[in-house]
Amino acid sequence: MAGQKTRQWVLSNPPAGDPVLSGDNPTFSLETKTLDAPGADQVLLKVLYLSNDPAQRGWIDASADPARLYTAPVTKGDVMRAFGVAEVVESNAASLKKGQLVLATTGWSEYAVLAAKECRPIQPDDKVGIRPTHFIGALGGPGLTAYYGLVDVARTTASDTVVVSGAAGATGSMVVQIAKHIVGCKRVIGIAGGEKKCRWVESLGADVCVDYKSPSFKEDLCKATEGYVEVYFDNVGGEILSLMLQRMKRFGRISACGAVSTYNSLGSSGVQNWFEIIINRIEIKGFIVTDAIEAGKSGEMIQKIVASVKEGKIKIGADSETIVPTAFEDIPKTWCMLFSGGNQGKLVTEIKE
Amino acid sequence: MAGQKTRQWVLSNPPAGDPVLSGDNPTFSLETKTLDAPGADQVLLKVLYLSNDPAQRGWIDASADPARLYTAPVTKGDVMRAFGVAEVVESNAASLKKGQLVLATTGWSEYAVLAAKECRPIQPDDKVGIRPTHFIGALGGPGLTAYYGLVDVARTTASDTVVVSGAAGATGSMVVQIAKHIVGCKRVIGIAGGEKKCRWVESLGADVCVDYKSPSFKEDLCKATEGYVEVYFDNVGGEILSLMLQRMKRFGRISACGAVSTYNSLGSSGVQNWFEIIINRIEIKGFIVTDAIEAGKSGEMIQKIVASVKEGKIKIGADSETIVPTAFEDIPKTWCMLFSGGNQGKLVTEIKE
Repeated sequence: MAGQKTRQWVLSNPPAGDPVLSGDNPTFSLETKTLDAPGADQVLLKVLYLSNDPAQRGWIDASADPARLYTAPVTKGDVMRAFGVAEVVESNAASLKKGQLVLATTGWSEYAVLAAKECRPIQPDDKVGIRPTHFIGALGGPGLTAYYGLVDVARTTASDTVVVSGAAGATGSMVVQIAKHIVGCKRVIGIAGGEKKCRWVESLGADVCVDYKSPSFKEDLCKATEGYVEVYFDNVGGEILSLMLQRMKRFGRISACGAVSTYNSLGSSGVQNWFEIIINRIEIKGFIVTDAIEAGKSGEMIQKIVASVKEGKIKIGADSETIVPTAFEDIPKTWCMLFSGGNQGKLVTEIKE
Repeated sequence: MAGQKTRQWVLSNPPAGDPVLSGDNPTFSLETKTLDAPGADQVLLKVLYLSNDPAQRGWIDASADPARLYTAPVTKGDVMRAFGVAEVVESNAASLKKGQLVLATTGWSEYAVLAAKECRPIQPDDKVGIRPTHFIGALGGPGLTAYYGLVDVARTTASDTVVVSGAAGATGSMVVQIAKHIVGCKRVIGIAGGEKKCRWVESLGADVCVDYKSPSFKEDLCKATEGYVEVYFDNVGGEILSLMLQRMKRFGRISACGAVSTYNSLGSSGVQNWFEIIINRIEIKGFIVTDAIEAGKSGEMIQKIVASVKEGKIKIGADSETIVPTAFEDIPKTWCMLFSGGNQGKLVTEIKE
């Protein structure tokens, strides 16, 4: 049987600052390739949805030192790495039937050939509103990241007041809900960009959500954190982190999850107010969700989230995802919405036929 | 009995950047005052030595928010706060005899009247080389800070490689010695300014000490930390901290003790390479030595240091202190040596008659 023809987005110029989507030296290039036919225990996948994750920016950075990355970088000429939800269209593996939906590292490709063991079968459940895309969102990496960073890394308990930045993002919106509805935190404060997102974050359970785009942001944040806070879940780094160092209680804990505000910046201004860490004995811990998976904790964590979804406490409705129907040639453009705050909840690329 | 006349240095203009020692708006002003005679359970002290500590800069900062400081700030018009070694010259307290040496918060003053309970009697011991000034150095705050930050905060064990900045300072030189001679660390790397200091740090037990004033500093530090390190004891903050974030092993620990490189800077460039904290799961913990004291740990810690001094492992010879005989009117000038790297080991002001 002839191999499947597919289009693929390849990393052509690792970016130092903003990814470049046009011109002579674009970050990504569109190529067409004929895949090998699937071999023994392999499957041919058709990609339906792509996961857009801020972490992907780290994998392609021009200055990335492979020795320092937690995963191999994507190098020049590689297909851009991404998680995807895909359908098995051809199978040489007993464990995966044609038509099965799977989660896999498909990359930015229309089709992919992978070993069956690299594919995780998923079971959406219409009755409780669990859709295929939830496995790359609330019930996937972002949900797990939220649970692990909040409960394990920051050791958050019900008596804590928690602040989370990027609160309208895939991970942040789950942090808000897990803090409020699973941990039962005293007070949960979100930080997000724009009125609409802030009100949405409050609808998820945040006691208040502060708009970082507002001219009164600094004062609003001070007011929202009067009396200071025990836990800060940081998705953004940069200026908001510098401000939050001044809003931590003595012996407060910061879960350092991401720094999306800085991923595309060259010569950023760095983190200010370091002295607060010393005089207020702040603890900061960086983490990567794969640590939870390797420690065998992910199953239990996802079960707790699913239980809470079924009880109607954690909301994963349509407004918790921004699903962008995208022509294959526009995949990089949709991905870049991550860095302009274009999404509410999980940003998903739905590949248009 | 008439009160004792004394000169005192008073905080007249809390500094925002470098302390100003001359001109129309100096940071400190010299005043003369007559003290009240000591009352019941009080003593009159004559100050012999003053402790110079980077932390003092934090107590007087113009932008300090009293709600965020771990101790009350020194405010405009107050005598500049400092620890001192003093002699009891008049006593109304049964517990303290005339002639007794004590450790107390005397401030920058020739004489001070204090309650006996605010004075800690000290017992120098010539036979083992323990001098009065050691109680504000190796056997005082700096020694305790080193022990607590290294052993309790960073949980350093013998299998760890440790880097310490400010390694020729009062605290840093004790970190080097405690790491090597008490904890028994595999490898201890100092960072200090200048050839002479670096060789001295190596004489204390560091496997290597890297000179931050050398044009090849960055390369030298990379070479010294090949294979990366588990623990960084940070006394300086700023650029060296930013570099060290790239030299930490996965799950490495940073003890955030001080940031002397930034105390006098306005609009500093901030801490760079924050992303390393995330991708390499670095833990950072700020601490203040008073936490060890309040937790009742200081006695045991100092005993361990004293035992190691008596065994000849930890060296507290004359080269571990920079004792500067200082006319009373030059006290601020001697203090400022802290910020120009002027001292090797503990910087002590000896008040000249």
